[in-house]
Amino acid sequence: MGNELTAEQIDYFMSEAMLEARKAGALGEVPIGAVVVYEGEIVGRGFNMRERLEDASQHAEFIAITEANRQLGSWRLPGAQLFVTLEPCIMCAGIIQQTRIADVYYGAADPKAGAVRSLYTLLEDERLNHQVHVHPGVQAEAAQTLLKDFFRAVRQAKKAAKAAQNKAE
Amino acid sequence: MGNELTAEQIDYFMSEAMLEARKAGALGEVPIGAVVVYEGEIVGRGFNMRERLEDASQHAEFIAITEANRQLGSWRLPGAQLFVTLEPCIMCAGIIQQTRIADVYYGAADPKAGAVRSLYTLLEDERLNHQVHVHPGVQAEAAQTLLKDFFRAVRQAKKAAKAAQNKAE
Repeated sequence: MGNELTAEQIDYFMSEAMLEARKAGALGEVPIGAVVVYEGEIVGRGFNMRERLEDASQHAEFIAITEANRQLGSWRLPGAQLFVTLEPCIMCAGIIQQTRIADVYYGAADPKAGAVRSLYTLLEDERLNHQVHVHPGVQAEAAQTLLKDFFRAVRQAKKAAKAAQNKAE
Repeated sequence: MGNELTAEQIDYFMSEAMLEARKAGALGEVPIGAVVVYEGEIVGRGFNMRERLEDASQHAEFIAITEANRQLGSWRLPGAQLFVTLEPCIMCAGIIQQTRIADVYYGAADPKAGAVRSLYTLLEDERLNHQVHVHPGVQAEAAQTLLKDFFRAVRQAKKAAKAAQNKAE
């Protein structure tokens, strides 16, 4: 199970990831957030910034992991835990596996692009040099609601913009 | 086939990727290099810098892709070609797929971690929103020789260091 965390710790760290997700939403980015925990401390935080930075690598958990690399002065993070509000994609599963993170706790499943349980089980592949303990569905409802509300607001804003344009013409 | 390149162009761009690989080797990094090509021009270059920068994301093709993102001011790279001396890993296959790169040309296969043909065929998964044209084995022998020579030199240096230590004791 990697390092054992209490239910209270799991809840606390996922709430911190949710806080990061809300920061992304406030900036008009898809609201996904993440934190990396090492020996009980948060050593990396991130929220999705892909559109704003126009950089394909700027997923929440990717930012949190590379921040943890800098904080700890090492590209390897053995024994670390990652908390992320949405199931990681292929790219992020790749960096998680390579950094030797011990445990991944995630919120909502991503049926279209999730590479941890939905489309692939990349973190548990025994052919690779490291396997990760996967803990899905942590505060999943809250993470999903945040995403749904965001996409509803985007649709409404598009609709309103279109209506205003039609009126102006 | 994405944008059509001539055999001469393919050879030229892979030679540029090999040049990047040699830079990594000169710095004591595993010699892997990459370039991203857009409309016939190189818009991103990278060589493996993982150890030196202690950052898990610093694979050759990852650096080249995020440089191309900056150059073109967009996290999407539709129609672009990637040239890389070694078969991409899971993380790099993930960013390649997400940026909508059209074609990947690679040199040596990576039987232990390759995610394009060896362990997975992530770039051709029809469940994902984009598929990439894969061109394996371009200047494969040269890429493989570079890697083999590097690892042989590392082993010899370790052996020499051990012998010197034994002599000193």
